[in-house]
Amino acid sequence: MARSPRLAQGLDRNAAHFTASVFFDWRLLPYDIAGSMAHITMLAEQNIVTQEAKEQILAGLEQVRQEWEQGTLTPRVEWEDVHMNVEGRLGEIIGPISGVLHTARSRNDQVAVDMHLYMLDVAERLKSLLYAYIKALTDRAEQDFGVIIPGYTHMQAAQPILLSHHWLAYKSMAIRDFERLQQWQQRTNLSPLGAGALSGTPYPTDPARTASLLGLSSVYDNSVDAVSDRDFLLEFLAWAAITMVHLSRLAEELVLWSSVEFGYVRISDAYSTGSSIMPQKRNPDVAELTRGKAGRVIGRLQGLLTTMKGLPLAYDSDMQEDKEAVFDVVDTMDGVLTVVPGMLNTLEVNRERIARRIGQDYTAATDLADILVQNGMTFREAHHLVGMLVTELEKHGKGFGDADPDWLHTVAPKIQPEWLRMLTPERLVAKRLQPMGTAPERVTEQIQATRRWLAEHQPV
Amino acid sequence: MARSPRLAQGLDRNAAHFTASVFFDWRLLPYDIAGSMAHITMLAEQNIVTQEAKEQILAGLEQVRQEWEQGTLTPRVEWEDVHMNVEGRLGEIIGPISGVLHTARSRNDQVAVDMHLYMLDVAERLKSLLYAYIKALTDRAEQDFGVIIPGYTHMQAAQPILLSHHWLAYKSMAIRDFERLQQWQQRTNLSPLGAGALSGTPYPTDPARTASLLGLSSVYDNSVDAVSDRDFLLEFLAWAAITMVHLSRLAEELVLWSSVEFGYVRISDAYSTGSSIMPQKRNPDVAELTRGKAGRVIGRLQGLLTTMKGLPLAYDSDMQEDKEAVFDVVDTMDGVLTVVPGMLNTLEVNRERIARRIGQDYTAATDLADILVQNGMTFREAHHLVGMLVTELEKHGKGFGDADPDWLHTVAPKIQPEWLRMLTPERLVAKRLQPMGTAPERVTEQIQATRRWLAEHQPV
Amino acid sequence: MARSPRLAQGLDRNAAHFTASVFFDWRLLPYDIAGSMAHITMLAEQNIVTQEAKEQILAGLEQVRQEWEQGTLTPRVEWEDVHMNVEGRLGEIIGPISGVLHTARSRNDQVAVDMHLYMLDVAERLKSLLYAYIKALTDRAEQDFGVIIPGYTHMQAAQPILLSHHWLAYKSMAIRDFERLQQWQQRTNLSPLGAGALSGTPYPTDPARTASLLGLSSVYDNSVDAVSDRDFLLEFLAWAAITMVHLSRLAEELVLWSSVEFGYVRISDAYSTGSSIMPQKRNPDVAELTRGKAGRVIGRLQGLLTTMKGLPLAYDSDMQEDKEAVFDVVDTMDGVLTVVPGMLNTLEVNRERIARRIGQDYTAATDLADILVQNGMTFREAHHLVGMLVTELEKHGKGFGDADPDWLHTVAPKIQPEWLRMLTPERLVAKRLQPMGTAPERVTEQIQATRRWLAEHQPV
Amino acid sequence: MARSPRLAQGLDRNAAHFTASVFFDWRLLPYDIAGSMAHITMLAEQNIVTQEAKEQILAGLEQVRQEWEQGTLTPRVEWEDVHMNVEGRLGEIIGPISGVLHTARSRNDQVAVDMHLYMLDVAERLKSLLYAYIKALTDRAEQDFGVIIPGYTHMQAAQPILLSHHWLAYKSMAIRDFERLQQWQQRTNLSPLGAGALSGTPYPTDPARTASLLGLSSVYDNSVDAVSDRDFLLEFLAWAAITMVHLSRLAEELVLWSSVEFGYVRISDAYSTGSSIMPQKRNPDVAELTRGKAGRVIGRLQGLLTTMKGLPLAYDSDMQEDKEAVFDVVDTMDGVLTVVPGMLNTLEVNRERIARRIGQDYTAATDLADILVQNGMTFREAHHLVGMLVTELEKHGKGFGDADPDWLHTVAPKIQPEWLRMLTPERLVAKRLQPMGTAPERVTEQIQATRRWLAEHQPV
Repeated sequence: MARSPRLAQGLDRNAAHFTASVFFDWRLLPYDIAGSMAHITMLAEQNIVTQEAKEQILAGLEQVRQEWEQGTLTPRVEWEDVHMNVEGRLGEIIGPISGVLHTARSRNDQVAVDMHLYMLDVAERLKSLLYAYIKALTDRAEQDFGVIIPGYTHMQAAQPILLSHHWLAYKSMAIRDFERLQQWQQRTNLSPLGAGALSGTPYPTDPARTASLLGLSSVYDNSVDAVSDRDFLLEFLAWAAITMVHLSRLAEELVLWSSVEFGYVRISDAYSTGSSIMPQKRNPDVAELTRGKAGRVIGRLQGLLTTMKGLPLAYDSDMQEDKEAVFDVVDTMDGVLTVVPGMLNTLEVNRERIARRIGQDYTAATDLADILVQNGMTFREAHHLVGMLVTELEKHGKGFGDADPDWLHTVAPKIQPEWLRMLTPERLVAKRLQPMGTAPERVTEQIQATRRWLAEHQPV
Repeated sequence: MARSPRLAQGLDRNAAHFTASVFFDWRLLPYDIAGSMAHITMLAEQNIVTQEAKEQILAGLEQVRQEWEQGTLTPRVEWEDVHMNVEGRLGEIIGPISGVLHTARSRNDQVAVDMHLYMLDVAERLKSLLYAYIKALTDRAEQDFGVIIPGYTHMQAAQPILLSHHWLAYKSMAIRDFERLQQWQQRTNLSPLGAGALSGTPYPTDPARTASLLGLSSVYDNSVDAVSDRDFLLEFLAWAAITMVHLSRLAEELVLWSSVEFGYVRISDAYSTGSSIMPQKRNPDVAELTRGKAGRVIGRLQGLLTTMKGLPLAYDSDMQEDKEAVFDVVDTMDGVLTVVPGMLNTLEVNRERIARRIGQDYTAATDLADILVQNGMTFREAHHLVGMLVTELEKHGKGFGDADPDWLHTVAPKIQPEWLRMLTPERLVAKRLQPMGTAPERVTEQIQATRRWLAEHQPV
Repeated sequence: MARSPRLAQGLDRNAAHFTASVFFDWRLLPYDIAGSMAHITMLAEQNIVTQEAKEQILAGLEQVRQEWEQGTLTPRVEWEDVHMNVEGRLGEIIGPISGVLHTARSRNDQVAVDMHLYMLDVAERLKSLLYAYIKALTDRAEQDFGVIIPGYTHMQAAQPILLSHHWLAYKSMAIRDFERLQQWQQRTNLSPLGAGALSGTPYPTDPARTASLLGLSSVYDNSVDAVSDRDFLLEFLAWAAITMVHLSRLAEELVLWSSVEFGYVRISDAYSTGSSIMPQKRNPDVAELTRGKAGRVIGRLQGLLTTMKGLPLAYDSDMQEDKEAVFDVVDTMDGVLTVVPGMLNTLEVNRERIARRIGQDYTAATDLADILVQNGMTFREAHHLVGMLVTELEKHGKGFGDADPDWLHTVAPKIQPEWLRMLTPERLVAKRLQPMGTAPERVTEQIQATRRWLAEHQPV
Repeated sequence: MARSPRLAQGLDRNAAHFTASVFFDWRLLPYDIAGSMAHITMLAEQNIVTQEAKEQILAGLEQVRQEWEQGTLTPRVEWEDVHMNVEGRLGEIIGPISGVLHTARSRNDQVAVDMHLYMLDVAERLKSLLYAYIKALTDRAEQDFGVIIPGYTHMQAAQPILLSHHWLAYKSMAIRDFERLQQWQQRTNLSPLGAGALSGTPYPTDPARTASLLGLSSVYDNSVDAVSDRDFLLEFLAWAAITMVHLSRLAEELVLWSSVEFGYVRISDAYSTGSSIMPQKRNPDVAELTRGKAGRVIGRLQGLLTTMKGLPLAYDSDMQEDKEAVFDVVDTMDGVLTVVPGMLNTLEVNRERIARRIGQDYTAATDLADILVQNGMTFREAHHLVGMLVTELEKHGKGFGDADPDWLHTVAPKIQPEWLRMLTPERLVAKRLQPMGTAPERVTEQIQATRRWLAEHQPV
């Protein structure tokens, strides 16, 4: 059926399988039908096809859609792709009149509009999942308020911070992800239908009308661009890759924090798996897979960029490779963003263990140096003296709070013992009062601001 | 100098070289100094440092800046990075008082602010280059108005289009690139200064004031995010990769079109190179390198995504890898966007050759089928009949216009000879009158709209 | 069933779906069963399990394998992966005795051995497809012997070469691909079974025996490496990426050569598709998809490298991502290497068109310069003079052979008219007699050498 | 000078800078000169050039080489690339006779031979660095013999292993890396010189002779392949990417192990850096950068694969992008492999801390289950019972060894108290006696085998 008379001989069986896309573009069917319905409606309005043809076709398309929904429709490889499967089945139902649907349209603008419609739906879904993720982070920030953890740089405990502050750093990333996706949505919200194969169409069509019937806010301004553009897919994959980098960083921390060595959190049974051989194991599978899937998504971005690079305009079959890449990433993002909020919601924070831990390290060192500076030492001297003190304490397995005053007088006479006692994590955190800082006041404000954001971005 | 007393032994010489960044972060110096000037000004305003310290430091920094500008300052590897080279040189100039610049700041927020300032400058520059590129495409669209080329799909001549329409498809891509960069700019226009190492600072600093002194419109809302965020670099690289995909497609077409086989254009001598061995060659080097560099940029995006994936918060040295990747892409984009407009401006379009070419192919086939449909044939029949006619004509090496009426009557009696004569490229193009279409009216509107866009986006 | 008593609560439904691999690792089933059969056989030989247990298990496993083969076995998500589906079904068939199969084994070494066995089979299959591809290239080289095409550099016609020589360049690449795959096979031909979870096993097992039962030639030398190693998959993906780069270059040339502008070849109907809207089109779909799929394969390599980067030893769930990436590439390579030989075998070379084309260009320029040098001119002067002559001829739309002697005498008195007449493509090609060169003698030798290679590498 | 008369107008200044490669290919100079020396020697032997010309050229080339070595030669952008800089300088030294060097050669085969020679040198250097790395791992395995660490899966302590066994897993990876590089070297050890621009050369040259003069063992068999082949660079980058994945895994573990939470090792001061603001910090910079640079190398592989994908034969300027990618990776690998052995050699292993740690966890659980099985329980029951026991002990903060016999009798009557006492790490490790296992006997054998390997692979 897709064979032109120019192709006397049939397609080789392997080649038919190789070129067919119906095995993976099946999910586009409802969007394809929506596009066809808008198209035939506009054609009738413009008197390009008869009212009767329109009605028969609309009814036939509705039946195909229902068969798909009910799972009674099966893809046929001899019909190559979803478009021709729809058309083929339509022909079986309503007969030759189905052929007028072809008028003033090509598979090039058809598949482009299908992908726009599908991706806009995907974006709504992913935005609602991102929303749930941001909410889960905010809930954790509220629930864990007051817990102080060592903040790390270079995986070395650096300065004490509120655990809530740490969760909210991920919130800041996720809000950027949300904003990027929203801007992508606005840029994607336009219709290529009417571009035909590449040059437009000689029929008196009304592309703005089909766009509006499909709920799209505008029309491409250039037909060649309309059929050759895959920016909306590349940009989506780049969005996904950056979002996955964020999630992979959270996942890495959950893997580390749930290890025996850290012991900061316990991932719920509902998000852990056991070992077939080691009865003591609780494996943070969900977090590990989230981290691992970042690689997959990054690779898919890479793959499509590479495929698109250097392709002459307007349409080349290489571009058919967009679908499997994008669908795989859509499913991956959906999967990850579905499980991560649940894993966060059910996480147990081991407050005791963390409290024990924070007392034993030297994350107060910066602040001790600052006290010395405020008491007249240069920053360099202070930095040096504190470094030396840490080295000595470490040798004796002690923290700042454990330093004996006499011993202290011997090794660092310029340091007053009471200064050391002032260095509680609570005080250190409380002093970071500037905007961005980890002081409870600032963190509370962040939570409030995020709650306002959540109220304003409620998914519909 | 960067050695803590905790590190008794000196850094291994190879390790020093391995970890130093001063060989590549030197270009950040003016931004580093701007950041330090804002910082010390704010510290003095907040009475954290004395007025006198501020003045000495400002003068000293200005001197360092001038030495850098005049090229008399040389990077020293023992001072690791640009920040410590500035500080070290400042110390030589004004003595120990330079140490107060350390107050309430860390290299983590310092390098982050340097990169924000640098990248915002880069974006202005790249926007002005993109602007010139969009202008060059529009100029070509005006200049080449009336030239009709075969539009291609699958590298097969498909339907005639205005060459201007083709150029303007690239304009549509470039305007999206411009818009994405602008949104990126807005998202990047905020200051991390005040985040300290990761938790904020115990001093009564005013991060909003330093932001404003630096011309940045706001401040990060979370200090951990402020030092761990590299989204603005990842998003920039993704922007660059997509932009390079567009440029690589144009480059591919220029390479093809300047081949003997196509012969549509002649790339100016100023953008071609010869062969050391083959005197007849004119190599489209600039276009080839543009295409090739798309791979490099895509790889750099990949590299940084891979480096950032799975890094625990807040700062890890891995992130130092951001600079070489980003600087390389900045330079590549600058280079490409500098030469491409010139190559376009000086391109010669071979109107005769194109005119000869367009008369010989079968790009009118779709329109012939449409005529048959309008005369009562079903689309399927028409498609079939035209395909058969093309096969026959091709056997005799003839185009539609060359078909003898008698012969035509024999092979395709349903086709009227006068229909074939109506299929001139000019008529076919003129009929694509709908929005997006390639009809001269529509293309003129596109040019006008782009001129308006250019007027509104004039670089400052 | 995979739940440890340590995990009181059931796995979240979404998490179960997220972590399950049975939807994609189902193809490993026969390898998993082979591994289990070897394992239980060895356990019985070592008297670790009873003879009776072995026999029941062997019979049960055989039944599971048959059910899989007949398609009556369906994957169950509650059994997570293929290993536990086999085990679960085995338990249903033979009861609790199936549990002894667990002895001295872990899923970590089990999945590793499955993947080795599967990949070694894949390599045999891909080698036979590569073999067919090399044969197709050699057949073309024989069949097209004598046809002279312009060889290109920078997409500019450079020097005439035998088309056979061009096909054989792809043969040289493919033989390197074959060699790399063979070395990979040797490196992959070893067994991780016996590594247990990561440390080996306390039972007196005989890993060399299981290896030998499985037809593997040796055993990993370190159990931690055995379960954490994915080199054989990364190296396979890198092999595939390089092989696809070669195929994409061939595909690009077939797309170009089958365009109207080149017209060198006609891709058989069996490997072309038509257009739904443009009756005249013959789209080189198979070639385009081959080119496009190179991007996909490169992206998958990238994805797995990124996933593996920075993973601590020994096993992390991230590594589960290896399967979909590798299976996708295996299927892609299989598909591409299945259709490409057929497309080559059925290609029609348009000898007339090529002959016309080769007469019109200036690919003889290098040789003309060489003649001038042999007649006493310096290379530089000769290069300059010939370049000038080409410019003049081009202005008049003439080739070397068309130059009028009188005119020639005016513009380039140092060039003898008879020299120009000596510059036939046949002579130029015939002179490239040195090793590697395009002279018929050399190309014949290449064909003979490849025939010998084919005789020696006949697939079994 | 590179300008053909076909290019009347000079190259645009920006385009000249854009297309020049001399800024980065300067390091090829000695290889370029070696290639030219071999070429001119062969030309004289074949009587294609005079003896006198040969001698003058050899002397001139030697002078250029010396000027380069002494740093008195500076690259000139108007001479584009290293080849023309050599030729240009040669012309200044010996006059027009230098032009005969052009005979029977093109920049296409010239740059290809330069890269082969350079890369073969690089491979020797990298092999000696890999050798030092393998030696460092083996030394550590000897030095740390007897230290038992928890082996991890999913970042959860799994089973005790010898630290030596863990180091030796990295040795197994590195030996594979070495083997792959060696096979690459053999495949790269052939000469493209004689391929000319792409078709060979009409002069009676002797490519086998130039190959032999350059120490290369054979000659490409196809001139088109010889100038279009970049497999040796792609394969090298793939080699580097896989090697970096290994090094990044080691680096990740060193970062983790040197954290306060693990505390297994202390990275020497010589490979650590301090913090400008936090006096207590010891940052594992070298390990972090090693991990981070894996991303860079993976990206470079990606970049070149993308650049090469879909390029028509034989040579395109896009391929010029190979150099910066490859040189960057060469330098990165050199840097990483230079510092990592030193970091390993100077590492301090904290035996006490590790010993304390290994006593507190449940890594003996598998073995306890095995004891239960040997005492008649099914594997499933045993697995379940041990899991339950771990949960109970964990609640009381106890290890297996701390379990009170009475308490044990209450919670798990089937477990004999003496069984728990048998579960020392030493016994558990000692039982893994099978090939690959972590028992001291096996690990000693691995060390011995590696020592033999080192003896056999001593760098020259």
